[in-house]
Amino acid sequence: MPDGTWNTRATRIQMRIDELASITDEPGVITRTFLSPGMLQVNKMVAEWMQDAGLTVSEDSVGNVLGEPPGNTDLPIFLLGSHLDTVRNAGRFDGILGVVLGIEVVDYLRTCGVSLPFSLGVAGFSDEEGVRFQNAYIGSKAFCGLITPRDLTMRDRKGVTLRQVLERWKEGRFVIPKARYTRERVAGFLEVHMEQGPVLEHEGLALGVVTAIAGQSRMRLTWMGKASHAGTTPAALRQDALVGAAAFVLGVQEAMVKFPGLVATVGQIFVEPNVSNVVPSRSIHSLDVRHQDDSARNQACTWLEARAREIARERQLQFEWETLQVTNAKKCDATLSRRLTDAMESVTGSTWQLPSGAGHDTVILSRLFPVAMLLVRCRHGLSHHPDEFVALADIAAALEVTVEFLSSWEPA
Amino acid sequence: MPDGTWNTRATRIQMRIDELASITDEPGVITRTFLSPGMLQVNKMVAEWMQDAGLTVSEDSVGNVLGEPPGNTDLPIFLLGSHLDTVRNAGRFDGILGVVLGIEVVDYLRTCGVSLPFSLGVAGFSDEEGVRFQNAYIGSKAFCGLITPRDLTMRDRKGVTLRQVLERWKEGRFVIPKARYTRERVAGFLEVHMEQGPVLEHEGLALGVVTAIAGQSRMRLTWMGKASHAGTTPAALRQDALVGAAAFVLGVQEAMVKFPGLVATVGQIFVEPNVSNVVPSRSIHSLDVRHQDDSARNQACTWLEARAREIARERQLQFEWETLQVTNAKKCDATLSRRLTDAMESVTGSTWQLPSGAGHDTVILSRLFPVAMLLVRCRHGLSHHPDEFVALADIAAALEVTVEFLSSWEPA
Repeated sequence: MPDGTWNTRATRIQMRIDELASITDEPGVITRTFLSPGMLQVNKMVAEWMQDAGLTVSEDSVGNVLGEPPGNTDLPIFLLGSHLDTVRNAGRFDGILGVVLGIEVVDYLRTCGVSLPFSLGVAGFSDEEGVRFQNAYIGSKAFCGLITPRDLTMRDRKGVTLRQVLERWKEGRFVIPKARYTRERVAGFLEVHMEQGPVLEHEGLALGVVTAIAGQSRMRLTWMGKASHAGTTPAALRQDALVGAAAFVLGVQEAMVKFPGLVATVGQIFVEPNVSNVVPSRSIHSLDVRHQDDSARNQACTWLEARAREIARERQLQFEWETLQVTNAKKCDATLSRRLTDAMESVTGSTWQLPSGAGHDTVILSRLFPVAMLLVRCRHGLSHHPDEFVALADIAAALEVTVEFLSSWEPA
Repeated sequence: MPDGTWNTRATRIQMRIDELASITDEPGVITRTFLSPGMLQVNKMVAEWMQDAGLTVSEDSVGNVLGEPPGNTDLPIFLLGSHLDTVRNAGRFDGILGVVLGIEVVDYLRTCGVSLPFSLGVAGFSDEEGVRFQNAYIGSKAFCGLITPRDLTMRDRKGVTLRQVLERWKEGRFVIPKARYTRERVAGFLEVHMEQGPVLEHEGLALGVVTAIAGQSRMRLTWMGKASHAGTTPAALRQDALVGAAAFVLGVQEAMVKFPGLVATVGQIFVEPNVSNVVPSRSIHSLDVRHQDDSARNQACTWLEARAREIARERQLQFEWETLQVTNAKKCDATLSRRLTDAMESVTGSTWQLPSGAGHDTVILSRLFPVAMLLVRCRHGLSHHPDEFVALADIAAALEVTVEFLSSWEPA
């Protein structure tokens, strides 16, 4: 196989990604949210490419596009895929890359006449970013039969419920979707996705195999002291709520050293009264803690809460620790991941494993499928931004590794 | 002199303070700004009380009310006074106490027939808080002949210049005021003022003699890092602008230990993008540094800037240090302050000296007068707040100490 083939095909992937980037709900930027006009237009275009690759296309009741091999078969199904929706003012690769690359893989394998021990399909999910309903994964949840009646009561900014949106779209004939496949029929799911982080670039690697999608704890901390005059209150008589928060922010940095693999962030902070000549009476800030290992994350949270308590005592402050959300880590399938690592090694001569700190459709798909994920290097770790960028050579490498991964498959 | 007298007179002071508190530009709260209807009404009332105390009253071209002993005299002038304007939604004691108590002192000394080696007057200044023009001390500056043509170009929120305000008020006949007194004629100025801090309450003392009005440096610091994904950016690849600010806030606490008498505050902070799942790219915060000794304040600022530079280097951040304003400390007159301390000791049996961390009319008056300041305990250090409170017994103590201070005067 001459190298040129991968570049030619990577160039087509790039062109298709550019073509999808021109379809948007907001002229001048890239924005496509759940079941928006832009999304539906993208679905049509993706469906055509799937058909060109020899797939039979269907669109389910929540706008997922699915391309499956034609004809009935007893073979298990293996899916490539990711999502087609975007954040507001998005880049062009996030999600899209995995779908367009999946179609290219199918087309390539068909062209080469490679025979696989499974049916190979491609899925483009309709909502992963959660922009419209402030709630992610509507597409993949529906695909896996995980939408509940309660989910249907979520409202968008205009107050329209998810049920109303779906009924209007399906002209009243909407029923809650069932899982597309039974657990017995599925061979696996592979999501190829841009990294959205700086690690691969830092390591000088095009690709990395995901070990797990990190679990996440989201907290809100409130520090309460006493407002007082910045000029007339001596150090010893101050109860400065910002000092508590500041000491805690440094505690968070300590935690990342103490618990290897932990990422923990205070990204948002509000101070009251937030006036230069008044000692702050209150500071409220976020805390985002992630780790691929749930017990390490839980230990870190326990340590951080104890640290906060200690700071509050030292600084004579009150504090409140509220846990807003906890999501456990999802390990990728060990067998698939080993095969993917082997494919990466055989194609690129090196291997790299890393957790994914961002959530992905893979988290939901793991409820039904054995899952694997291949991350592709991006520039400066930038994502959810118009400048997000994946190099052509890295797309080519991802394509070749995916083909190698699938064609070296041996039936269980 | 029976103790009852002081309490009776303190009660009248309290009643007059309450009466002035009922005069406001904003119904329901206490707000009186420069030359507002409320201010002018208060001036009339204060003028009446001054007349009742035997003083001859004048109102100058910027709305200061001055009560002087009647008749020509070659005696030097000694002034008691403070300001009559307020912040928005103010308390009732800040400024007012010093004027009303001054009138009571004059009335008391006249009633007792005490002969003093100077003319004793009372001044009520028209702008100390600087609410209308965002620039404090218009009253005392004008009184001391320190208003410049440039000052007259300041504009209020409606875009009206100070000159326009003054010309309208004086029906076009406004000229820049000259100093009311020559340096040769002044014997001294004493400002009695609520503490606006927690020190006296903490020490269990009604009164304190001010050593100096602290100098102040106001800075703005900006920390610049790099926005990145909170889930996918490992600790080692972060440049978190909030971490820089947090380390600096703790550095500020260190500085207060390292430089005794220093008060330093980060009261205001803004973070960008201020989103829980993004590592902050930028944080901007205030820094307010005060000390009664200018060289200690300057050393502390140098140390803090070096500390910031060190943090920026350690954390791979850029930082900017902008000095917005520097005001040097004003020492109170040593002779007057010693006499005031002696009077406090003779009346209360104890002495206490402290710097004033807040600015006062005394700072301006010190350009022309030997100055002294007596601080009166307030509750919980609260000021610029409807709940600000000075106890009747502490007003009585301030009254008695002021009388003692003046009547024990020996001509130089």
